[in-house]
Amino acid sequence: MGKIMIVGIGPGNISDMTPKARLAIETADVIAGYNVYINLIAELIGDKKVIGTSMMQEVKRCQMAIDEAAAGKNVALISSGDAGIYGMAGLIIDMILNLPESERPQFEVIAGISAVNAAAAILGAPLMHDFAVISLSDLLTDWEVIKKRVECAATGDFVIALYNPKSKKRVQNILEVQEILLKYKDKNTPVGIVTNAGRLNEQKIISTLENFTSEEINMFSLVLIGNSQTYVKAGFMITPRGYDF
Amino acid sequence: MGKIMIVGIGPGNISDMTPKARLAIETADVIAGYNVYINLIAELIGDKKVIGTSMMQEVKRCQMAIDEAAAGKNVALISSGDAGIYGMAGLIIDMILNLPESERPQFEVIAGISAVNAAAAILGAPLMHDFAVISLSDLLTDWEVIKKRVECAATGDFVIALYNPKSKKRVQNILEVQEILLKYKDKNTPVGIVTNAGRLNEQKIISTLENFTSEEINMFSLVLIGNSQTYVKAGFMITPRGYDF
Repeated sequence: MGKIMIVGIGPGNISDMTPKARLAIETADVIAGYNVYINLIAELIGDKKVIGTSMMQEVKRCQMAIDEAAAGKNVALISSGDAGIYGMAGLIIDMILNLPESERPQFEVIAGISAVNAAAAILGAPLMHDFAVISLSDLLTDWEVIKKRVECAATGDFVIALYNPKSKKRVQNILEVQEILLKYKDKNTPVGIVTNAGRLNEQKIISTLENFTSEEINMFSLVLIGNSQTYVKAGFMITPRGYDF
Repeated sequence: MGKIMIVGIGPGNISDMTPKARLAIETADVIAGYNVYINLIAELIGDKKVIGTSMMQEVKRCQMAIDEAAAGKNVALISSGDAGIYGMAGLIIDMILNLPESERPQFEVIAGISAVNAAAAILGAPLMHDFAVISLSDLLTDWEVIKKRVECAATGDFVIALYNPKSKKRVQNILEVQEILLKYKDKNTPVGIVTNAGRLNEQKIISTLENFTSEEINMFSLVLIGNSQTYVKAGFMITPRGYDF
């Protein structure tokens, strides 16, 4: 039976991908993943077999990877960012462990630079203190649960990283989140928005809690909301850790 | 004036370090950092000038890096993990922006694989859902603030990642955290402990909220506490995202 490598490719450029991830892709027999992400690493794939599926076909993609492994192929199942953070690791491992023990392929997760890591580096140093990571996609999670988490993160004065802040169809959630946060946080709290981090057309915007929803935010954006100590200076967003100097 | 590259080297082995981080180290004139981390990348440093300082000397280390840049040298200031997550990025940028504008060296943060990314990959897929990252070091943060954050993260049913869970001198905090969490979470909630992730003597333990504090935890450990959906199977820790398959 083949092995499934669950590979976080990072933001999408080769210079942010770990050597371990690159090796897993280069040595695999089959590459599986969402077409958009496969295109980002086309230069590493050469003439390997590719199982590219479109968005929302996560289950199909994983099943095809499992079938290839059962047929003796080594598969690199790729995720953008970190496969372990809102990536493919959860579903594929869930599906593998659901098989009878004798039919389970071996697997390994290879960590990558996630959007929260990449966006923070671009903004300066917003994550120097405790932070909460929340996805605003309510496709698989009840919206009430997500709102409660936003409320808890605000109560705890966490820096807050929002994944999937907005898509073409999902434009209301970010406005509701803003409304909740304004109950707990100063309206001038710095907010950083990084879109296409580490990719072509990378964009960095620094705004405030009161105003950030009028900026361009899309499904390739990561939104970082400061805690009560976060400040902006010279175009950078910093959450001081509290050293004396 | 030289430039300061603030480099996250990842867990500590070359195969988890991004090419961008490696290039920054290889092309720098001077390498600055905590001695232990400098030793992890000794093979990349060759005969460059090294400013190694011992633990707790963060301010001194940053000042030396700034002085070198003022003298025209390009400096790689290294952090283990991600320089942007409890790493050196905050302090050095804080110090640079505090200088008169004409004396500020250019700088750039290079993201790396942080302990939370590395530990999650080793444990399986514990971070497939919203998570909170909290440091239990109360050196620079009031212990009451930290406890409140733990409480908020538990109320929101976040997966919780604990950095700096314990040191030789700080053994009580993790016990208090356990006590708080037991008020909100089931005592059988899975807890993963990864020590020396990606380094020699890497250790992975899977335990429960009720029992995990009796396991070996030290300053090189990352502790991951599941949410209400997290399960353990075949030695892996999974927080399902909620796909039907």
